[in-house]
Amino acid sequence: MPRWSDLSDNEMTLLDHVFWSTHISRDALANGAGFSKSRANAVVAGMLDQGLLEATGAQQSTGGRRAETLRLSRSLGVLLGVALGATGLEVGVLAPDLELLAHHSEPADVRDGPALLMARVRTLMRELLAKCKRRPGDVMGIGIGVPGPVDFESGQLVNAPLMPEWDAYSIRDDLRADYAAPVFVDNDVNVMALGELWRMQRGLQNFLVVKVGTGIGCGIVCHGRVYRGANGSAGDVGHICVDPAGPRCHCGNLGCVETMAAGPAIARAATEAARGGQSALLAQMLAERDVLKLQDVAQASRAGDVVANAIVQRSGALIGQMLASVVNFHNPSHVFIGGGIQRIGPLFLAAVRQSVYHRSLALSTRHLEIQYTPLGERAGIIGAGVLAMQETLARRVAA
Amino acid sequence: MPRWSDLSDNEMTLLDHVFWSTHISRDALANGAGFSKSRANAVVAGMLDQGLLEATGAQQSTGGRRAETLRLSRSLGVLLGVALGATGLEVGVLAPDLELLAHHSEPADVRDGPALLMARVRTLMRELLAKCKRRPGDVMGIGIGVPGPVDFESGQLVNAPLMPEWDAYSIRDDLRADYAAPVFVDNDVNVMALGELWRMQRGLQNFLVVKVGTGIGCGIVCHGRVYRGANGSAGDVGHICVDPAGPRCHCGNLGCVETMAAGPAIARAATEAARGGQSALLAQMLAERDVLKLQDVAQASRAGDVVANAIVQRSGALIGQMLASVVNFHNPSHVFIGGGIQRIGPLFLAAVRQSVYHRSLALSTRHLEIQYTPLGERAGIIGAGVLAMQETLARRVAA
Repeated sequence: MPRWSDLSDNEMTLLDHVFWSTHISRDALANGAGFSKSRANAVVAGMLDQGLLEATGAQQSTGGRRAETLRLSRSLGVLLGVALGATGLEVGVLAPDLELLAHHSEPADVRDGPALLMARVRTLMRELLAKCKRRPGDVMGIGIGVPGPVDFESGQLVNAPLMPEWDAYSIRDDLRADYAAPVFVDNDVNVMALGELWRMQRGLQNFLVVKVGTGIGCGIVCHGRVYRGANGSAGDVGHICVDPAGPRCHCGNLGCVETMAAGPAIARAATEAARGGQSALLAQMLAERDVLKLQDVAQASRAGDVVANAIVQRSGALIGQMLASVVNFHNPSHVFIGGGIQRIGPLFLAAVRQSVYHRSLALSTRHLEIQYTPLGERAGIIGAGVLAMQETLARRVAA
Repeated sequence: MPRWSDLSDNEMTLLDHVFWSTHISRDALANGAGFSKSRANAVVAGMLDQGLLEATGAQQSTGGRRAETLRLSRSLGVLLGVALGATGLEVGVLAPDLELLAHHSEPADVRDGPALLMARVRTLMRELLAKCKRRPGDVMGIGIGVPGPVDFESGQLVNAPLMPEWDAYSIRDDLRADYAAPVFVDNDVNVMALGELWRMQRGLQNFLVVKVGTGIGCGIVCHGRVYRGANGSAGDVGHICVDPAGPRCHCGNLGCVETMAAGPAIARAATEAARGGQSALLAQMLAERDVLKLQDVAQASRAGDVVANAIVQRSGALIGQMLASVVNFHNPSHVFIGGGIQRIGPLFLAAVRQSVYHRSLALSTRHLEIQYTPLGERAGIIGAGVLAMQETLARRVAA
């Protein structure tokens, strides 16, 4: 593995460009980096020799001639990505071009606390690396998404309402025992936004990623960069009020969108409908499973259950009402919705769209697209890989 | 006046740094621009000779020695700034370091249409330049703030609800007849945000400027830059819903904060109270003036009128409720409130603060400061000068 400190500035510039552009041709690389073709070719030749880049596949060029494309070399090492949610965790080993080499996800309760969960994460990292025949020394960088606000510089969680024990816990110190590679921690939705930014090769400059699961959070991209706010809590949209006369939220206020429309609210409404005899299907599910979850309501909705559909539509309308405010403020080109809610399918999305288009100004929504996250359930783990690679590269450049 | 095209990249870098730092010392300039002291001194000496920079005043250094400071030379030319509001206009001639050399403001109704208003603006520009003994050829750049969404590249207003006639009107073409200098147009609140960014020498990276007058708008600064959104309508917070059962707004929706809490709503509530005999002071003002305006309610409130105070507090509470959503989303370090509402004084601000701190998450508000715009009534005209200078410099760098 080449030492970062040995690389020239030109080499780092090209590495960064190749990372942000999947299957880039030599000409496109020279263009993007602002190098002459001959200069780019000379640097690339050296990087191919050193095993920093690999020439792969071939791209059909407009003239019918087949042009070689470049990607980051596998010999650079691997990245570790972790997506920690309120109710599940996922660990992955990724190649420098973010191909997922191995990954594992399982249910987990973030309230079990950091010691237990991080021990499990370290075990999974070890097992997955072994599966890929890689050693801890091969790890270039580690990226972790967590379900709470993060002080990005220190990598510490701050005031996470769902995970109080994590505030004083250093994920970085924990992993330092096993890995020499740098560890970067960010809020889970910021990580998803970073993943989508990479997927689009930074083609969109201003967009939002909204995660709806146990809570509701928003990743914000401004001027082509993830925006974290003054204290790392930007995008904390779950406690925006959608009904001043609504039920009390755990934060103390009334009518927060999270308490009225996120996964637990959907499951609770379905459970009440099942108990009240309003839906035979939900009642049957409840009898079989003892407890109804978001995915059960999603399944009932996809099966055409009228009550489940009404619950889903109400949630979509409330989230759309919150998004209308956010869209008026941020004027994004796209809103991507991810998290467990994605399993519900088009009905939820239709309700969100109707609510946003109804409430937002014409100018904010004229070209606005609202869709599910294209990376789907992989948005978290791919985003964690992007975080690891981007910050590892940036660190070298700043050094 | 030196020709921009003759300046070196080094000279442009230093000009930009001097512009963004009032009264900068040579050492601070070298530091900020990343130049060695000797290199900076050599370039500065040349720039003093060419009349690009001036050595002015002196700064008390920590050692008690007095160090010379630098500013942009008056011989570079002047800037024209225009702040166009819904009910008034202001035109100013500014030095390159943004000292206001001459200015004039007067009531105006933006609904009179662009032909009439821009004719008046051109007359004022001519008169104010003459007053400063400057010719149109001395103008380096022109900056204009307008009360509606702007497509920044083209400088065209788009879908401005208050000024339909302006959509097809080119302010740039209008001014091209009189001036060779480039013309930059932006939304009035973005311009105010730019002014505050300059005043703080870019010391704050993430903050908001909220203008409350005839309408309500928000200027957004992310990562140290004004953020305009995907279509130039970012910060359009006036139509965020604060009461789903509220009155209908001209936009068609119910309970928009603008229709319930901006200047006209305050004036309307005061008029009703005067007619209903609830306030002797407001009734007396209405009898004297035929119509009550925001500034009349401000005056009554400052005089301690209980009914005026209740109206002001209700407006502050509603605007605070809207800001709570916005603060949760953007997590700014500061919210600066400007526009006509500033005349009311501390009572309005107290109501806004109480509402925001009550509704926003602890993390978003722990270090949040809410205050009136430090540039006060000059925020618009200074901001227009910053717009003119910044974009004129950027244009040269890009050329």
